[in-house]
Amino acid sequence: MKKTQRQEIPRKAIYRLSLYLRCLHRLKVNAIRTVSSDALAAAAGVKPTQLRKDLTYFGQFGTRGLGYDVEQLAKMITDLLGTNSLQPVILVGVGNLGLALLSYRGFEQEGFEIVAAFDVDPDRKREKPITQPIYGMDKLAALVRERGVRMAILSVPAVVAQEVTNQLVQAGITGILNFAPLVLQVPEEVTVNNVNLAIELENLSYFVQD
Amino acid sequence: MKKTQRQEIPRKAIYRLSLYLRCLHRLKVNAIRTVSSDALAAAAGVKPTQLRKDLTYFGQFGTRGLGYDVEQLAKMITDLLGTNSLQPVILVGVGNLGLALLSYRGFEQEGFEIVAAFDVDPDRKREKPITQPIYGMDKLAALVRERGVRMAILSVPAVVAQEVTNQLVQAGITGILNFAPLVLQVPEEVTVNNVNLAIELENLSYFVQD
Repeated sequence: MKKTQRQEIPRKAIYRLSLYLRCLHRLKVNAIRTVSSDALAAAAGVKPTQLRKDLTYFGQFGTRGLGYDVEQLAKMITDLLGTNSLQPVILVGVGNLGLALLSYRGFEQEGFEIVAAFDVDPDRKREKPITQPIYGMDKLAALVRERGVRMAILSVPAVVAQEVTNQLVQAGITGILNFAPLVLQVPEEVTVNNVNLAIELENLSYFVQD
Repeated sequence: MKKTQRQEIPRKAIYRLSLYLRCLHRLKVNAIRTVSSDALAAAAGVKPTQLRKDLTYFGQFGTRGLGYDVEQLAKMITDLLGTNSLQPVILVGVGNLGLALLSYRGFEQEGFEIVAAFDVDPDRKREKPITQPIYGMDKLAALVRERGVRMAILSVPAVVAQEVTNQLVQAGITGILNFAPLVLQVPEEVTVNNVNLAIELENLSYFVQD
């Protein structure tokens, strides 16, 4: 049932639900209890028609003329996204970027906990003190199983990214946040989200030309 | 002329051109001189029809049956993206994430140089040694003008992000890579690309549910 429902929602819509959730959290902090679709759309930077379409995934709710109940809508989105409890995540590749991500506080605020990091050289001297344990790659499969981890942040060099991805998939990881600048080959049931910071800059570069 | 041409290419297509460029660089490194659209599309993880459509922005080229000249196509994309010379970028907000980005080597490899960083507290003790100078915000406008900087990486806390954005726009920045989790309000001529790492994880979370 849930599986079917999930496949019907496009990935872009899921991103927008995350955006709405952030806006709803801000409203809650400011003790605002209801919000119109126009106001929520403006806060999220989308068109009101888009917002209303996205929220139809939850069926009919909201009161005409009164708008949406902030708390209720936030809960529905959180339930759908599966972030209602702290989720364990592992990180593989503790170089410069990996270290930065390990100390990035934004993940925990949003319900994710990096429970462990892995590296081919776990004992390499690192300039920054971090709180998470760093293990060798041979410990990966056992930890993923024991902690029930499904998501991994991949911050290894591009040349080894596919090989490490195979290990992750083998270990049971089904969601990969990939920072390596290449297209990973994964089985259909595994989702890869790519973050390529250089590509983002390159894209900007196009738009800032004279 | 260039301006008109630019507005005709959708942002998504620009992202894909960046992807193709990376694939072409790999081919060049491996001394491969020509590539078919099917092979290049597969390497970039897009459909061949999509790739061929994207490349029509360059007009007709490529030889039927022989494919594209790797070197020539790479040069055309680089010219279009405006990354044929090292581009100066500034970074604002030297917290954990900012520090990480300053030491991220990926930018320079792709033609971007972070020439300076700015922070409300430039002299704060930082755990990691970095090579770029860190200045107070009062130095921002002058440096942007002197170095002809157009792009800024914004890694400040969300509560001050809009205010800092206003300063950037005022100083003449027209492209912002935004890491703060909010929708920035900018004039039409300014482009904002948002990177929200927590949203990427949240999106994955949806797909890894049972």
